[in-house]
Amino acid sequence: MSERGYHVAIVGATGAVGQEMFKILEERKFPVARLTLLASERSAGKRIPFAGEEWTVQRLTEQSFGGVDYALFSASAAVSKTCAPAAVQAGAVVIDDSSAFRMDPAVPLVVTEVNPHALTQHRGIIANPNCSTIPLVMVLKPLHLRARVKRVVVATYQSVSGSGARAMEELERQTRETIAGQPATAEVFPHQIAFNCLPHIDAFGEMGYTGEEWKMVRETHKIMEDAAIGMSVTTVRIPVYRGHSEAVNIETERKLTAHDARELLATAPGLAVIDDPEKARYPMPITASGRDEVFVGRIREDPSHARALNLWLVSDNLRKGAALNMIQIMESLCAGVSR
Amino acid sequence: MSERGYHVAIVGATGAVGQEMFKILEERKFPVARLTLLASERSAGKRIPFAGEEWTVQRLTEQSFGGVDYALFSASAAVSKTCAPAAVQAGAVVIDDSSAFRMDPAVPLVVTEVNPHALTQHRGIIANPNCSTIPLVMVLKPLHLRARVKRVVVATYQSVSGSGARAMEELERQTRETIAGQPATAEVFPHQIAFNCLPHIDAFGEMGYTGEEWKMVRETHKIMEDAAIGMSVTTVRIPVYRGHSEAVNIETERKLTAHDARELLATAPGLAVIDDPEKARYPMPITASGRDEVFVGRIREDPSHARALNLWLVSDNLRKGAALNMIQIMESLCAGVSR
Repeated sequence: MSERGYHVAIVGATGAVGQEMFKILEERKFPVARLTLLASERSAGKRIPFAGEEWTVQRLTEQSFGGVDYALFSASAAVSKTCAPAAVQAGAVVIDDSSAFRMDPAVPLVVTEVNPHALTQHRGIIANPNCSTIPLVMVLKPLHLRARVKRVVVATYQSVSGSGARAMEELERQTRETIAGQPATAEVFPHQIAFNCLPHIDAFGEMGYTGEEWKMVRETHKIMEDAAIGMSVTTVRIPVYRGHSEAVNIETERKLTAHDARELLATAPGLAVIDDPEKARYPMPITASGRDEVFVGRIREDPSHARALNLWLVSDNLRKGAALNMIQIMESLCAGVSR
Repeated sequence: MSERGYHVAIVGATGAVGQEMFKILEERKFPVARLTLLASERSAGKRIPFAGEEWTVQRLTEQSFGGVDYALFSASAAVSKTCAPAAVQAGAVVIDDSSAFRMDPAVPLVVTEVNPHALTQHRGIIANPNCSTIPLVMVLKPLHLRARVKRVVVATYQSVSGSGARAMEELERQTRETIAGQPATAEVFPHQIAFNCLPHIDAFGEMGYTGEEWKMVRETHKIMEDAAIGMSVTTVRIPVYRGHSEAVNIETERKLTAHDARELLATAPGLAVIDDPEKARYPMPITASGRDEVFVGRIREDPSHARALNLWLVSDNLRKGAALNMIQIMESLCAGVSR
C-alpha cells in the first residue's frame, strides 16, 4: 500500500457484484489509493464513477495486475482459473468469488464472522463462498458451538441476481412480456422465470443434485471444519430480483429451545433476528435488499423431532453473499493477518 | 337426481375455485341437470355461461338449497359453518373446500386417490383438504405403503391463487406498480408479494407455526390415517399466479432407492413423474397450470440420511388442490358410495 491506501483491482467491474463493490468500498471508507477496473473486451472503455472520480474499465489480461495490492474477482470460474494465478504472480492478493478455488485445500474459504482464522493460511488466493452458503453457515455456527449441528435440511428461494445483471434484465423483460400477454423469451435461465420457479441452479451432477446444491454441502463442511454435518439441499430460483431466502431445518446433538436459539442468533456477529410473527414481522427479500445483515426469523421448535429447529433466513446475495464478504476479507487482511 | 342428471349448487361461484369448477364439470361431462350458483350479495346478479346456457348468480342464504343433490362450497370457513348444515338439512350432500369441518371426526377428509374408503362414513358433509396437503399425501401414500413414512420435512412455494381471485389481481397490480417504479400497495397480503416472498400463510398460532402449516400436519395425519408420521412444515407464498410447489424430504422406515421411489410414483394414480434433469425436465408451476396431474421430479436419495429421499412436486392448486378433487369426490359418490 501507498500512504494514501491500497491499489485495488476489480475483475468483473461492470457486473452486478462489481457494481455493489463500489458502493460498499465508499460506504466503509476503505482506503483506495488507486482502482484498476477490469472486464471483458465488450465492457472495456466504460467509465465508472467512484469517490468523486471517473475510472475507465480496461480489458482483462494476465498482465493487468502490476502494482495491485488486492484483486477482487467476480467473473466466471474460467476467468479466475486463468487470471488469478497471474495476479498472485504479480504480487496481488486475490479474493475470488467464483467456484474455481473454493474446494482447493490450499485456498482458505472464508466467511469473516465464521472462520477468519483460516485467512492466516492463504498463499495468495482466498475464496469467497457461494451466496447461499454464507448466510447458512453464519446461522449454523453459533448453534453448532452450543449444541453441535448434526443434520441440516434446507430449501432455498434464490433471487435472479445470483445469476448476474443479465438475469435481472431477463426477469424484468419476461415480466413485461407476460403482463402484455406475450410469450416470455428465456435466454439466461433454462425456462421462464417470471411468475414461475425453477428447481435448477447450476448444472445437474452426482446423485441428481445440482452444482449449487453440492456447493452448499461441501462449502459448509469446509467453512465449519466439520464434514460430519449431514446436509440435504434443494436449491430453487424464484422471481425475486435480490435477496436469497432459505427454509432451514436443523437437528442438533443437544436440545436447543427456540428461546435458546433466538438468544444465540441475536448476539451472533452479522445476524439480525426479526421474529415477531404476531405483528407480521419476519425476514423478506424486499426488506433485506441493500442491507448488510443476515436476517433470521420464524425460529421454532420442530414438532417432528425432539432436537430440531426450523428457521427462515434472508440475506442480500449481492452484499453479504458476495461483495460485502469479499471486502470484509480484504479489511481483515489489511488489519494485519499475515500474508 | 333427475333423469337428466344432478342438481348441483356452487357456493362461491364467482371465485377462483368456482370458475375452475365450471371448466372441470364441462371437461368431464358431469351430468348437471340444474345449476344453482350462489355467492355473496356483491356478486348476485352476475351471469355465468355453462353448457351453452347462462346462469344467474343468486345471493346465498340458508334457504338456497331446496332440491339440491350436491352443494360444492368454496367460500370462507365462516360461510361454510353457517350454510353447510342448512344445505344438509335440505337434503344436499356438501363437499366443502374450507377449513371449517376438515378436522371434525364426523367429517371425512378425502383425496380420491388416497382414502376414497372414508367417503362411506359421511353424514352429509365431506371436506376437501388444503391445496398443499392434497399433492403431498398423493406422493406420500405409495411410499408409505411400501416403506412406511416416518418423517417429512417440507418447504412450500405457494402461488397467490391459493388466496383467491383478488390475490391474483393484487400480484398483477403490484407487478405493474413495481415495474413503473411506483410503490406496491398491499391489500390482500400483509406485505408486497410482487418480486418478494412471504413465510406467512394464514394466521400464526401454536409453537410459532401458521394455520397453513398446522393444516398440512393435521390433515396429512387424518388422510393417511397415521398420526405417527412426523411433519415439519414451512409454508411460503411466492409471486406465481398458479401452481403450488413443494420441496419434500421424506424419511422412511425401510430404505427406498431413488429408482424404487420413481417406479412407485410413476404408477400411482393421479401422479406424473417428470424427472429428466439432464434435459432440464422437472415440474414447474407454469407447466403444471391447468393440468390435473400432480407432477413429481428431482427424486433423489438424501446424502445426509440412509433412509431418506428428496423430491420436488408441483400441482395446480385450483384444480387437484381444490375444484378437481371436489368434483372427483362428487363423482365417487355418484358412482355408488352409499350416503
